[in-house]
Amino acid sequence: MVKQALYLDDLKVGDTFISGQYHLNADKIKKFAHEYDPQAFHCDENRAEDTFFKGLAASGWHTAAITMKLLTESLPFAHGVIGAGGEIEWPRPTRPNDVLHVKSTIKEIKPSKSKPNQALLFVECETFNQHNEVCQKLSAKLLSFRKR
Amino acid sequence: MVKQALYLDDLKVGDTFISGQYHLNADKIKKFAHEYDPQAFHCDENRAEDTFFKGLAASGWHTAAITMKLLTESLPFAHGVIGAGGEIEWPRPTRPNDVLHVKSTIKEIKPSKSKPNQALLFVECETFNQHNEVCQKLSAKLLSFRKR
Repeated sequence: MVKQALYLDDLKVGDTFISGQYHLNADKIKKFAHEYDPQAFHCDENRAEDTFFKGLAASGWHTAAITMKLLTESLPFAHGVIGAGGEIEWPRPTRPNDVLHVKSTIKEIKPSKSKPNQALLFVECETFNQHNEVCQKLSAKLLSFRKR
Repeated sequence: MVKQALYLDDLKVGDTFISGQYHLNADKIKKFAHEYDPQAFHCDENRAEDTFFKGLAASGWHTAAITMKLLTESLPFAHGVIGAGGEIEWPRPTRPNDVLHVKSTIKEIKPSKSKPNQALLFVECETFNQHNEVCQKLSAKLLSFRKR
């Protein structure tokens, strides 16, 4: 994992970053869910069986939070990973004992009109499980800054 | 807060739901950040001063998670609040001692072509702080089911 600080000047479309791994388990899924998404399919293995998810599944927002942790470790942007927003989808849920990692690709670099020292990066962040199935696809808008 | 289970048959475009309140504080911001978004501006009041955020700010994903908690309490959908994805933006950060609430409005109802008993709801979920400023705007795609 490269820890150098990358400025706008260092980045180009097509640049790709691979994160480390995150090991999910049932306890982590239930702990997050109790605090932020207390629904049966995220909180209780037994009650989850008869739901849409047919078994315990992590909250999509838990998957998003884990993805963010992996991004902070794998996107070595100067001034940090600062998001303005984006599009998110969850093609399949993350499950107990999934091992997740994120692949990020810079798709577009849009210089700011009002702030000449910064740009908006459009970064596609795909969160994979251990079977290389995509569990989350995030098209993130991230800030990038010029080296002054 | 109405706790009846609403099926697809009960919902129409324009329906609006107002959540209860969530009281944020610096400890909660830092706890979430240490686990999922460990960057200076989310973890440390002093170091946050010299950053883009000019002071401690919650992770956008923390705001999203809090929003989900408020949605689970305020959207009384049968079978739960199940998201397929959506668009998210954070026009301004949430801060220590903010009091948040969410207003959700059904913008579109799109019946599934392959599954006649379900539809995709396009729901605009705005997360406000105590000054009625929008801190997060989420255009969520949620599943809704017909009463069989």
